[in-house]
Amino acid sequence: MKAKVHVTLKPGVLDPQGKAIAHALEALGFDGVADVRQGKYIEIDLEDGSGGGAEDRVNEMCEKLLANTVIENYRVEIES
Amino acid sequence: MKAKVHVTLKPGVLDPQGKAIAHALEALGFDGVADVRQGKYIEIDLEDGSGGGAEDRVNEMCEKLLANTVIENYRVEIES
Repeated sequence: MKAKVHVTLKPGVLDPQGKAIAHALEALGFDGVADVRQGKYIEIDLEDGSGGGAEDRVNEMCEKLLANTVIENYRVEIES
Repeated sequence: MKAKVHVTLKPGVLDPQGKAIAHALEALGFDGVADVRQGKYIEIDLEDGSGGGAEDRVNEMCEKLLANTVIENYRVEIES
């Protein structure tokens, strides 16, 4: 079973990494880039038979470790 | 128009960051985690009227800046 987690900065939180990417794209000649935001993408392989409640468990992992919920949102998808 | 880009390490490339997350999850008492891989998730706001070929342009951004194609794969989705 695989869990896909997206961790993104909350709207309004400054994203210097995203700004750096936007500037670099402009310097490379890519026009029309209004904004860039960078987040994290985490794939977690869960052992089969770890039972139901996988989504709840991954949500708990996000709360405790993967995301800083003061400034970040997270989204969990489970693929069997 | 929004482009969503996932940049992930190619299979077989060592991922120390993912390994660190897996160990930390185990230390926190989460069992049944077989493997963790960490990638990047980048959202690019493209100005409207930047015309067709948005996907091609974002692919080019990935080739030139966003991904290291020696060790990373990328995936582009365009949302209008």
